[in-house]
Amino acid sequence: LKALAILSSDALSSVAYGPEQILIVLATVGVVAYWYSIPIAIGVLVLLMALILSYRQIIYSYPEGGGAYVVSKKNLGENPGLIAGGSLLVDYILTVSVSIAAGTDALTSAFPAIHDYKVLIACILVIVITLLNLRGVTESASVLAYPVYLFVIALLILIAVGLWNVATGQTPPVTHTAMGTAVPGVSLFLLLRAFSSGCSALTGVEAISNAVTNFKKPAAQNAVRTLSAMGIILAILFSGIIFLGYWYGISPKGNETVVSQIAAEVLGRNGLYYFVQGTTALILILAANTGFSAFPLLAVNLATDKYIPRMFTIRGDRLGYSNGIVTLGAASILLIVIFNGQTEKLIPLYAVGVFIPFTLSQTGMIAKWLKEKPKGWQGKMIINLVGALITFIVLIIFFTTKFTQVWAVLIFLPVMVLAFHRIKRHYEAVGEQLRISDDDQTTFALSGNVVIIPVAGMTKAVERSLSYANLIGDTIIAVHVAFDRKSEKVLEEKWKRVHPDIRLVTFYSQYRSLVRPLLRFIDIVREKSKDSNMAVTVLIPQFITSKSWHNMLHNQSSLLLKAHLLYRKNVIVTTLPFKFKK
Amino acid sequence: LKALAILSSDALSSVAYGPEQILIVLATVGVVAYWYSIPIAIGVLVLLMALILSYRQIIYSYPEGGGAYVVSKKNLGENPGLIAGGSLLVDYILTVSVSIAAGTDALTSAFPAIHDYKVLIACILVIVITLLNLRGVTESASVLAYPVYLFVIALLILIAVGLWNVATGQTPPVTHTAMGTAVPGVSLFLLLRAFSSGCSALTGVEAISNAVTNFKKPAAQNAVRTLSAMGIILAILFSGIIFLGYWYGISPKGNETVVSQIAAEVLGRNGLYYFVQGTTALILILAANTGFSAFPLLAVNLATDKYIPRMFTIRGDRLGYSNGIVTLGAASILLIVIFNGQTEKLIPLYAVGVFIPFTLSQTGMIAKWLKEKPKGWQGKMIINLVGALITFIVLIIFFTTKFTQVWAVLIFLPVMVLAFHRIKRHYEAVGEQLRISDDDQTTFALSGNVVIIPVAGMTKAVERSLSYANLIGDTIIAVHVAFDRKSEKVLEEKWKRVHPDIRLVTFYSQYRSLVRPLLRFIDIVREKSKDSNMAVTVLIPQFITSKSWHNMLHNQSSLLLKAHLLYRKNVIVTTLPFKFKK
Ligand SMILES: [K+]
Ligand SMILES: [K+]
Ligand SMILES: [K+]
Ligand SMILES: [K+]
Ligand SMILES: [K+]
Ligand SMILES: [K+]
Repeated sequence: LKALAILSSDALSSVAYGPEQILIVLATVGVVAYWYSIPIAIGVLVLLMALILSYRQIIYSYPEGGGAYVVSKKNLGENPGLIAGGSLLVDYILTVSVSIAAGTDALTSAFPAIHDYKVLIACILVIVITLLNLRGVTESASVLAYPVYLFVIALLILIAVGLWNVATGQTPPVTHTAMGTAVPGVSLFLLLRAFSSGCSALTGVEAISNAVTNFKKPAAQNAVRTLSAMGIILAILFSGIIFLGYWYGISPKGNETVVSQIAAEVLGRNGLYYFVQGTTALILILAANTGFSAFPLLAVNLATDKYIPRMFTIRGDRLGYSNGIVTLGAASILLIVIFNGQTEKLIPLYAVGVFIPFTLSQTGMIAKWLKEKPKGWQGKMIINLVGALITFIVLIIFFTTKFTQVWAVLIFLPVMVLAFHRIKRHYEAVGEQLRISDDDQTTFALSGNVVIIPVAGMTKAVERSLSYANLIGDTIIAVHVAFDRKSEKVLEEKWKRVHPDIRLVTFYSQYRSLVRPLLRFIDIVREKSKDSNMAVTVLIPQFITSKSWHNMLHNQSSLLLKAHLLYRKNVIVTTLPFKFKK
Repeated sequence: LKALAILSSDALSSVAYGPEQILIVLATVGVVAYWYSIPIAIGVLVLLMALILSYRQIIYSYPEGGGAYVVSKKNLGENPGLIAGGSLLVDYILTVSVSIAAGTDALTSAFPAIHDYKVLIACILVIVITLLNLRGVTESASVLAYPVYLFVIALLILIAVGLWNVATGQTPPVTHTAMGTAVPGVSLFLLLRAFSSGCSALTGVEAISNAVTNFKKPAAQNAVRTLSAMGIILAILFSGIIFLGYWYGISPKGNETVVSQIAAEVLGRNGLYYFVQGTTALILILAANTGFSAFPLLAVNLATDKYIPRMFTIRGDRLGYSNGIVTLGAASILLIVIFNGQTEKLIPLYAVGVFIPFTLSQTGMIAKWLKEKPKGWQGKMIINLVGALITFIVLIIFFTTKFTQVWAVLIFLPVMVLAFHRIKRHYEAVGEQLRISDDDQTTFALSGNVVIIPVAGMTKAVERSLSYANLIGDTIIAVHVAFDRKSEKVLEEKWKRVHPDIRLVTFYSQYRSLVRPLLRFIDIVREKSKDSNMAVTVLIPQFITSKSWHNMLHNQSSLLLKAHLLYRKNVIVTTLPFKFKK
């Protein structure tokens, strides 16, 4: 049940914005067109059923987790798999953006005073979720299940009270056009547009199929049962909201969501109303979190196949994971800011990012059935064929009716696929260069080690560096950069007295530059040592402070020097720790 | 003349928002109170004159640049100097925030369609200026003078046309309360509030006194002449706008600036109108830039006195400078976002940040005259006394009439002063620890070097590491972390064949963690080597790619390992470059 709850948050939360999207399109014609929301909703429900049936089969076929990337790559080949992978990145970014934008809408509907700070609130929410994920909030934390229960309960109460009012005749239908009336200005194009907008209510139904491994045994059966239960709840909530919206004659408004308007009409602006808004905001935030949880699963797959940086394979150290999370958070903030936090402008991109993997998964399953032909494959294939066809048609509708809003995906996807290919090609070239051939053994012999020690003054740190240099070096050179002539002379004399046997080179830097003179000197030494096949090692002290905030008071110019030396070939950089006691 | 132009942008640009601030306060009572803007403006002009006279004396006394930090510290002592320094940080951050917010207002007044994207536009502008400053745009670039000329010309045309209309009777005054009428609801408190708001028009007049060294010889005379010229121009522009605003009966509006309304009334919405708005936006952007240019001057002073990290003293390498610029940009974006881009909410903070250094500078000058008593010191002291008194009174007015808006400064300043002190104390403690005493010489002797080489596989990079390890080490240990048992075995066998004399230690990491097992092993070796006084060196390969974007495909786990080792005492980290050919 908990698995149901947490994995369903993505799908169920969609009813917070899906119905509204249909009304927004119909509102361009006028109130008279609202009755069309009922047949359009029926179309969405049919599509929902087709998707649920299709995903049942994916779950049974890929009990190890059937993400669109895996299914497409295995059955359709490399490039379809990569397109699915790229679309999933769009999907995850926009899962965060859309859910947070819609969650903020739920909050600002309840508290109109904060409406002006919508973008700020949305950005702060994304930052908080990003930080929580960096610290390692997992999808399995069972406390995360409660918002989902509460949301379902809240909406069921809302729908029940609403229907009771309708049944007892307390609320006569708002006088609007009777169902079936032909409305001038309503074209097929507009209806398709409204239908495709409504399909945003289906985003997230794929989540369960990706996480079959999270279920208790028998995992596949349990996952399928969960999927079906989720589909039924989603259908009830979606239909209920659509019907109440129609019956109460709700019009989409810029500053209040449709769900909020329905709740205010049905319940009044009392505690129950705030309960509905609060749980809606919570489940949407939870849905945003699924974007972060889904990302590393895809990343390990892509990284193992060498399409993205190798670091994403190292899950235990969370390095790639952290980079991914920060990128995800930053990208979704960027989108929220670009679209000024307007949910309805983000949704087309989101839906496209979801329906491309939908289509590819189903198509992959068709290819699988055609190849393997297991018992009863014809029936299974027809189910996936219907799923693939409908999702493909929805995609076409998207690109024809909302091209101005979704064209960016057509640029992003090829760029991503190209990047995937180039990264793989690079890794293969590098592997070739690192391979040892039989005659290489001798090339690496070194005849000695020149050690360069940048020196700021006569300190204990310098003494320690010298003792290590004596251990590892054949030639030792100390270098000092002075900002005034006087201190230059003082150091030179002191040095001669204490270390008469070690060479000190000093430079005077008129423009208070430390790193450039050092680099110039190191380059000269490097050139000279090349012929004699000597290694050149630069010794840099690293001060370790007892309080961590003190660290930013030290080592900054060392860091800068290191950053410059790191990408110089033939210069070896050695960092020598020096611990302060206080 | 160019110096005049660029240094004056900060001060002159203030007329874009100063007059409006007065009207915003008066508008809380109503149109009937607008006539008070005239006497209030006269008060502001008197204060302007006092400031100009005071700063003349500062320029003559500190021809090497008399920033408030230097003047206060030298004459009043450490803490007043640090308060001035902290206030100047507030000043610089808000110079950027306010100027950019006001510049965006000028743009959105001209193009109302982009009004909804105000915050976004402001943030983008700050980012662009930040990037330009990181790349090294200097205040001396003479092309930056033109926006100032054009702005002055544009406003002079606007004022001239407006006055012509008034003089020829084409524009009868809008029927509003005659000057001198007592208006119910106008309290002294309100008038003081309006006056302090108007003082925001004086922010930036100190800029010239900070940059006397930029002038041709005789620098002080030229600077003073420039200061006076700027004062006169500022007075003309300020009075002109106040008068036209009054005559045309302009009310402050949320979506259009007062200057834009005046320009639209006087000129009509034609090319000239857009010229006024465009040059206003440009000079405000230029004024924002002065915040970035002024910062490093203060930073070198504070860093030389050890109140902020030492890196800020190294100007040539631009490290501290870059950090400062990024911090400045980030802080001002933060403020813009927090205040939703509303100029009038940012201005009180800005004005406080400016008037604290104003007051401290003048007070410092008084102390100087009292101490040194040069010829005619009484007259000079009276001028600075008047300046100090008025600016102090303005400050008091700020804190009493706008406490709810400026209280944050009262928290920020003590925190900054405390931080300054703690940084200085830390640097002094550290200097003590690094000083060499006579009996230290022997403590650093090392008896040998244990070299640890993390190994990912049998590659050329490993061969090179081994050859360097042979050069510098007495004991060599290779370490491998395997994610599966099979690859672990394969490597072990291969290693035995190729390097039978070098010890290989392998670990199996179930959770795909690379860094943690390595760290654990290094810590064990470190413990063992402590007693025998051996150095422990970890050799880490650094792959250098030919294309820079390839770099992010490598070295990530090395970086992570290095980051962990950097702050472990007694572990020396050596980075060995390995260059890829493609
Ligand atoms: K969703
Ligand atoms: K999703
Ligand atoms: K290097
Ligand atoms: K200013
Ligand atoms: K300023
Ligand atoms: K270390």
